[in-house]
Amino acid sequence: MAYDFKAIRHVEFSETDMAGLMHFSNYFRYMETVEQSFLRSLGLSVFRSGDPPVSWPRVHAECDYKLPLFFGDEVEIHLLVAEKKPKALTFVFKFRKLNASPPVQVARGALTAVCVKHNSDGGMAACSMPKLALEKIQTAPLELLR
Amino acid sequence: MAYDFKAIRHVEFSETDMAGLMHFSNYFRYMETVEQSFLRSLGLSVFRSGDPPVSWPRVHAECDYKLPLFFGDEVEIHLLVAEKKPKALTFVFKFRKLNASPPVQVARGALTAVCVKHNSDGGMAACSMPKLALEKIQTAPLELLR
Amino acid sequence: MAYDFKAIRHVEFSETDMAGLMHFSNYFRYMETVEQSFLRSLGLSVFRSGDPPVSWPRVHAECDYKLPLFFGDEVEIHLLVAEKKPKALTFVFKFRKLNASPPVQVARGALTAVCVKHNSDGGMAACSMPKLALEKIQTAPLELLR
Amino acid sequence: MAYDFKAIRHVEFSETDMAGLMHFSNYFRYMETVEQSFLRSLGLSVFRSGDPPVSWPRVHAECDYKLPLFFGDEVEIHLLVAEKKPKALTFVFKFRKLNASPPVQVARGALTAVCVKHNSDGGMAACSMPKLALEKIQTAPLELLR
Repeated sequence: MAYDFKAIRHVEFSETDMAGLMHFSNYFRYMETVEQSFLRSLGLSVFRSGDPPVSWPRVHAECDYKLPLFFGDEVEIHLLVAEKKPKALTFVFKFRKLNASPPVQVARGALTAVCVKHNSDGGMAACSMPKLALEKIQTAPLELLR
Repeated sequence: MAYDFKAIRHVEFSETDMAGLMHFSNYFRYMETVEQSFLRSLGLSVFRSGDPPVSWPRVHAECDYKLPLFFGDEVEIHLLVAEKKPKALTFVFKFRKLNASPPVQVARGALTAVCVKHNSDGGMAACSMPKLALEKIQTAPLELLR
Repeated sequence: MAYDFKAIRHVEFSETDMAGLMHFSNYFRYMETVEQSFLRSLGLSVFRSGDPPVSWPRVHAECDYKLPLFFGDEVEIHLLVAEKKPKALTFVFKFRKLNASPPVQVARGALTAVCVKHNSDGGMAACSMPKLALEKIQTAPLELLR
Repeated sequence: MAYDFKAIRHVEFSETDMAGLMHFSNYFRYMETVEQSFLRSLGLSVFRSGDPPVSWPRVHAECDYKLPLFFGDEVEIHLLVAEKKPKALTFVFKFRKLNASPPVQVARGALTAVCVKHNSDGGMAACSMPKLALEKIQTAPLELLR
């Protein structure tokens, strides 16, 4: 059973804005990267995987920014499974700046993804998540989610 | 007194992802565009404007996605001032797909921006918003915020 | 017959980088936007349009940067058809900053797109462009391409 | 003396477009990432480093696309110093898809960056590159640049 995943990124020049900070929209791209790595580590994928194929579009995204991130900063993004419903998963993400002494949490985000199947007309409909996901993914301990 | 602003965008090819939809992170860029246009319409700016200069970094961002947006879709983004504190503004954004019959709300987002001054050491500190902002910006009527 | 198209954009905050300028990669997104508007104005599309459906992936992209662009700048992007081959189109793009006195060319770019059909295995193969494109698109006069 | 640098990236979901491929503009972000890592490995930086501080804005960027890249692909980007002038560096980038058998070159790009100093009025002016760059960077052997 899995309930968390960590990845590390370095803030790139193209991710900064004229204020000199990482642009706030890029935190969502960071979350997605870790979300996908987590799913891949379980043999799943965010888009059209399995038989029948399912995808995981997001229905909610949010982020609280506490301290800025700068070009070159080394950031650990820690995904935690916050909620598991039959058709949806909510992930919490803790952003820690590692090149600070001591390392410090700079942001906290969340994504909710719904499992969908693809209809023949191109539409999508929510469906129960695959057995593999049901069996392998569990909610993280409460003390980690704080 | 101003409490809302509308802008229209067309979803660009580079804003889609392999699922064929507008990538969820781009809704935050859309929100920012309207936020800036709103501030500019009042003679303000999101970055280092006024004397002494202040900026408006975001401390919170969120979005709920109801229906997908596709390449070429015409989207109206309606900004509404949801909360006005001495040092912070919260905006709500309603996304409407105009090329639907009838037009339909596809997403709803929010940004909270804090007014900061820039210290000589490069740091930032929250401060009261400029008189111009205090005088010109008010909260939108409740019925519009629903 | 059509050989050019113009569009206007304003540089957005999220398109700047910590150097305070529009990031160089975003000029390519601007080119694409105008390219697509040009094709759309002729009843074509960059992706899977027509019967049988064809797409227009790029095989070459380039840009020369002469003067920087800043947040809020008003930019005219002028697309010109520089070369028309049976299976490929090369577009030249002139970037003009309109909020300068007088307006000034700040960059010049180019894209080459190849017409492809989609094979049943998901692959793509170059093919002759649709009759509509052949008939409607012509090369711009040489004096405009300088 | 240094004349090359390699980095590896995995194509992210947010870097794809509705055609299912990595969007062509993102190759330029990949080039930049490797360019910066190369400079950093020499104790330099792309923005305001040294005394007096210099930056390296791009004056030219280009890319030839031979084969597409897909979500999850493992890509090696190989930077080579193609030209060294007193005030400018031209880098060539070879993109290799590593998860192909055998690995295959999928694209080839180039960036030209000019060394500039910052004037007190906010403007930039080309200048000779720092002694450190002059001493440490050399042109790659011709056979590698082919």
